[in-house]
Amino acid sequence: MKRVSKDNPLPLYYQLKEILQEMIENNILEAGDPIPTERELSEMHSISRMTVRKAIMDLVNEGLVYREQGRGTFVADTESKLKYQLSKLKGFTQIMKEKGLKTKTKILYFELKEATKKVRNHLKMPNDKNKVIEVNRLRIVEEEPFAIETVWIPYDLCPNMSQEMLENNSFYSILENEYGYNLDYAKQTIEPRILTEYESDLLTVEESALALLFRRTTYLKNGRVIEYTKAVYRSDKYKHEVILNY
Amino acid sequence: MKRVSKDNPLPLYYQLKEILQEMIENNILEAGDPIPTERELSEMHSISRMTVRKAIMDLVNEGLVYREQGRGTFVADTESKLKYQLSKLKGFTQIMKEKGLKTKTKILYFELKEATKKVRNHLKMPNDKNKVIEVNRLRIVEEEPFAIETVWIPYDLCPNMSQEMLENNSFYSILENEYGYNLDYAKQTIEPRILTEYESDLLTVEESALALLFRRTTYLKNGRVIEYTKAVYRSDKYKHEVILNY
Repeated sequence: MKRVSKDNPLPLYYQLKEILQEMIENNILEAGDPIPTERELSEMHSISRMTVRKAIMDLVNEGLVYREQGRGTFVADTESKLKYQLSKLKGFTQIMKEKGLKTKTKILYFELKEATKKVRNHLKMPNDKNKVIEVNRLRIVEEEPFAIETVWIPYDLCPNMSQEMLENNSFYSILENEYGYNLDYAKQTIEPRILTEYESDLLTVEESALALLFRRTTYLKNGRVIEYTKAVYRSDKYKHEVILNY
Repeated sequence: MKRVSKDNPLPLYYQLKEILQEMIENNILEAGDPIPTERELSEMHSISRMTVRKAIMDLVNEGLVYREQGRGTFVADTESKLKYQLSKLKGFTQIMKEKGLKTKTKILYFELKEATKKVRNHLKMPNDKNKVIEVNRLRIVEEEPFAIETVWIPYDLCPNMSQEMLENNSFYSILENEYGYNLDYAKQTIEPRILTEYESDLLTVEESALALLFRRTTYLKNGRVIEYTKAVYRSDKYKHEVILNY
């Protein structure tokens, strides 16, 4: 291993971080390998444990290594995360099916309620309508929890929608086949999020894990908004991928 | 304000969170408004400060409120974040120009170096080539730091590339106009990240702030990979948006 140098103008923690990063980038330390302990690194480079900790913290934040309580720190497998693509408006079931993955959906609740002001705005609801269906679903891929979705649907557009219908069919196919609607497009935003305790329990990931938050507003050909969806996706095993054409 | 109830089977912190969330959703508490203090909430609902703290922590994690050291907790402005769209392969300058925003780029370093194994793999470099150009750039929008990008370019494809060329022109236009390359498409992945101290300093955001990490591999029409880019985007003022067509 290269050594940090007090003659180098870069901070010591930063030098150590770069040394470890280069070892990972060159597969000298491979995915799953333990990295040397704080004590070993501190002795090897004659630097304080604080300095070592700062270097490792940066590597953790950059996702290059991960800690396991009581076991140590290991090189992360950044290359083999499964990618799911999103460039067309497709339902969850269809996207995963195209990748050959088995999915399940668990409806956590299905409620008819008064829309809050923000939900009304997102759904661009007519003034005389105020009822929305709020559905909370846990999405499961290959027997593992994958995302938690909350979707709001204007009740006047889907008057007879029931939990049973959603349990057995994809929402988009119900819209087309039961209600005869034509989907047009969706606007989707992506933000980073930290999971709440409730969410991390449902997704069976560690508390305060990082996630992606997707918000989607979907339009029908007739101009009405048919859904507003907020979904948190776990990010430890999946990567969101887009193909950009020139 | 509604009150939490010990007769309700939902945990007290969760009830409080839902009450505050509903007030935010209905604009009773508006963006920028302070929410009641921990002490006020604890007295009002006859619950412990710990319980109040847990409810507020969840709201912070969900991005609905934010804390300011020594000042209190305020309702976040989730609606007015600027959106930048990405569905075509375009350079940063072009995307922002189309939104009417002024951009600047600061080159932090420009180096010719040996590729690490991982970079070689990403760039799918021929066996007899090993040199890459590594460029680190700070992207600035309307005088505010916006993203930090590191791009690796196979040296054999851009033998005379210099820092000066990149300072005055977009990379993609250099590829087309100076080298005569035809861009084909890019694969881009998106992951959530926590900023390192170095990154948060450069982006002038609080330490450990959340960010989006984009990795992009861009292909030429001749099949060669022309760039591998890793970029961290601040997420406090911008949202990444995609339009999905059916």
